Amino acid sequence: MAHFPDTPGFTGVLRPLRIECDIHDLEVEGEVPAELDGTFHRVHPDAQFPPKFENDQFFNGDGMISLFHFRKGKVDFRQRYAQTDKWKIEREAGESLFGAYRNPLTDDPRVEGMIRGTANTNVMVHGGKLYATKEDSPPLLMDPLTLETFGYTDFNGKMKSQTFGAHHKIDPKSGNLCNISYASTGLLTRDCTYLEVNPQGELVLETFFEVPYYAMLHDFGLTEDYVVVHVVPIVSSWDRLRAGLPHFGFDTKLPVWLGVMPRRGEGRDMRWFKAPKTVFASHVMNAFNDGSKVYFDIPQAEGNSFPFFPDVDGKPFDPIASRPYLHRWCVDMNSKKDEFESVEQLSPMIDEFPRIDERYVSQPYRHGWMLVMDPDMPMETAGSRASGFRMNKLGHIDHATGEQKSWWAGPSSMIQEPCFVPRSATSPEGDGYLIALVDDLNTNYSDLVILEALRIEEGPIARLKLPFRMRSGLHGNWADRSKLRG
Amino acid sequence: MAHFPDTPGFTGVLRPLRIECDIHDLEVEGEVPAELDGTFHRVHPDAQFPPKFENDQFFNGDGMISLFHFRKGKVDFRQRYAQTDKWKIEREAGESLFGAYRNPLTDDPRVEGMIRGTANTNVMVHGGKLYATKEDSPPLLMDPLTLETFGYTDFNGKMKSQTFGAHHKIDPKSGNLCNISYASTGLLTRDCTYLEVNPQGELVLETFFEVPYYAMLHDFGLTEDYVVVHVVPIVSSWDRLRAGLPHFGFDTKLPVWLGVMPRRGEGRDMRWFKAPKTVFASHVMNAFNDGSKVYFDIPQAEGNSFPFFPDVDGKPFDPIASRPYLHRWCVDMNSKKDEFESVEQLSPMIDEFPRIDERYVSQPYRHGWMLVMDPDMPMETAGSRASGFRMNKLGHIDHATGEQKSWWAGPSSMIQEPCFVPRSATSPEGDGYLIALVDDLNTNYSDLVILEALRIEEGPIARLKLPFRMRSGLHGNWADRSKLRG
Repeated sequence: MAHFPDTPGFTGVLRPLRIECDIHDLEVEGEVPAELDGTFHRVHPDAQFPPKFENDQFFNGDGMISLFHFRKGKVDFRQRYAQTDKWKIEREAGESLFGAYRNPLTDDPRVEGMIRGTANTNVMVHGGKLYATKEDSPPLLMDPLTLETFGYTDFNGKMKSQTFGAHHKIDPKSGNLCNISYASTGLLTRDCTYLEVNPQGELVLETFFEVPYYAMLHDFGLTEDYVVVHVVPIVSSWDRLRAGLPHFGFDTKLPVWLGVMPRRGEGRDMRWFKAPKTVFASHVMNAFNDGSKVYFDIPQAEGNSFPFFPDVDGKPFDPIASRPYLHRWCVDMNSKKDEFESVEQLSPMIDEFPRIDERYVSQPYRHGWMLVMDPDMPMETAGSRASGFRMNKLGHIDHATGEQKSWWAGPSSMIQEPCFVPRSATSPEGDGYLIALVDDLNTNYSDLVILEALRIEEGPIARLKLPFRMRSGLHGNWADRSKLRG
Repeated sequence: MAHFPDTPGFTGVLRPLRIECDIHDLEVEGEVPAELDGTFHRVHPDAQFPPKFENDQFFNGDGMISLFHFRKGKVDFRQRYAQTDKWKIEREAGESLFGAYRNPLTDDPRVEGMIRGTANTNVMVHGGKLYATKEDSPPLLMDPLTLETFGYTDFNGKMKSQTFGAHHKIDPKSGNLCNISYASTGLLTRDCTYLEVNPQGELVLETFFEVPYYAMLHDFGLTEDYVVVHVVPIVSSWDRLRAGLPHFGFDTKLPVWLGVMPRRGEGRDMRWFKAPKTVFASHVMNAFNDGSKVYFDIPQAEGNSFPFFPDVDGKPFDPIASRPYLHRWCVDMNSKKDEFESVEQLSPMIDEFPRIDERYVSQPYRHGWMLVMDPDMPMETAGSRASGFRMNKLGHIDHATGEQKSWWAGPSSMIQEPCFVPRSATSPEGDGYLIALVDDLNTNYSDLVILEALRIEEGPIARLKLPFRMRSGLHGNWADRSKLRG
């Protein structure tokens, strides 16, 4: 019987959703632009069965994948679980068998040696397949429209890494999906890989590198000439796992490193630059290089942003220090010193979940969007339980003019990661729409809002109305109809 | 594009739901009794596409069927549209083609002559099939577990009536499904039928009778020896349809009739008794006879209870007079006069949606349950838009002792029609559970609550939690596992 814990991780804003559904032709307020022709996929963790431990981590839930399918101004909605190996054996058993987040020591013996992935972190269409990913496991392939699960792939045995990252960049020139993995030779190892998968779905590049210490490598940067990897001390060890501590903890004693590897090089060519101080940073807005100078744009906080991955030395969580602000890091591959050239704050907005016009991945770019925290909302409410933040604004930054704008979704709202959709394949950078789920914590309904991306301050031009509140999610991506074919 | 009207019929409490879904192993508070082994089906109207007219009737929506499947203390949830002929051709067209409620004059020419049914009124398992019914059309057969639609049936050409009622009684002796239809030879006709379908799904009895005037014959009574039909002046005419008025109106100038026909007789044996005054009455709790005396228990209101079917002479809707109270009507087949013997009020509770232990259909019985209106809740809120009432209590009446009990679901709640489930096939009358959907209009979540049927005042022993608020519905029924087989 499905008795979920009466804990903040499974009640209130994080109440389980667990619904697999279809809604034909979603109810809409306003007009959906007819040029929106394709799919928006996003994912959230949503435990299929009550967890083995009542303090279960939000990130430990099974991946529940949502699809908004846009066609001729109409939008169909579908939601399905990613049927991972874990999901299947637990469905068969009728209960949870896998234990704590990234801690196989807590698993039921029946699942020993199985892939622990939940496919709950990101979803992206590539080569006609939906890649549902979590960074501790290989990619799970699904049908982008039916959401049928095909299963994990190792690219016909070609991929040597045991894992595949959750944040991909599509190289605008080759069309390759670029990815970094970590813990590639086993849990807690320092081995990582850089991988590229071509539009036909073939693994065409995999090269190993080693990080200075094991850490959560959640995202990375790609430039025209370089792969850029930030190592931030969200760390772990077998000691932590044996002690039953949360997998990750934050270690302010360790430095932050930025690794830069030539695109056509190998892992051993990775050069490491040491940051001027230890900060917290996770998602990358974009990166680009101007000759030897490498620019890396990322929300950066003075202290740990993840209260659920506490300080390893017991320092209390500092909500003010946890606030991230968009920064630009710069290193120079011609420099003799292994130090940063500069760190510059780009925005006064408390921001995370940065997005861009993805056609400009790896390139100099002008426009960025992000979720913005309203500092007047108490940290202890709502989404803060999951993310440390209560994001209820969308922000836009114009790097060319410095102009910054935002749209506030209202006091009872929480916004999920936005996604940019170009008006057409040939429209200029930033000309298009920003879409995002807005969850109302009072009414418990969610809308997918559509805004003019360069005029977000005017608010939504359309709201696609869901008849329930979507659970807080992680990442998602748009795919143009042309991408849905294999 | 699905732009629903910004009217009370499609906003607030009546916001469209339109979700087809599966939830495996519903989250539960409390413990689901393991002896609950079977299915609870219920239905609500939920327009697939925005209606052709913005003042569209609640009862005009497409049937959306919910299934709670109980097994070993776990409950799976499924919800699907009844795929009526109307639903299919509209899905194909991508828009509404049928017009106003029971007014074919407002239809798109493309659907002329098609069955207009929506299967939105009642769902009951019989002979291993789910009968999804609306009283203006034949029964739609579906699979009780997959909710796949098989289509309309006329019982291999045997059924001569064009319609089939929405309220069935399973005769506890024969196991036959007993039913009355009206408008049996065409819209607005006074021709009706009494029908019986055996447990093998064969039509074994159909006999025609005529009512004194065309009226909404929504329910009826069955006793050991008689079929009992109440005719209440919820009337219509081609003039109304041509004028674009709501199909039905309430005509206080017409008398209320109670028709009584011997079970083994024919329609022409129907004898009509005239009620002492014109009242409003709709759903029947139960009926039984003691020799020639026929007892008929029904909530009765002094005035019209359906604000959406207004008085034909323009009399304003009277919310106080609209309140129904359980009454017992009695007629004597040995009487020389065509008048009632007595009308007795049985409860001070404002009640509707009466239910019983269905093993006692047609028999003298002791226990009844119903939805009860909290008179302190303003009429103008919530459910009143659909039903004229805001039902937020469950009531129990013990006819043997006169004792009456109730459970209040709380100020922001609305309750949907309850259903009694016996503890076992052999347990005494009333020994079992009462199940009902409780919708919270503040949080917009619904729970299926389970109460001890003879101790409802103690409140739920379990709550099955849905991650959305169910749309207001009509009727539903329990089927023991043994009934699910054909």
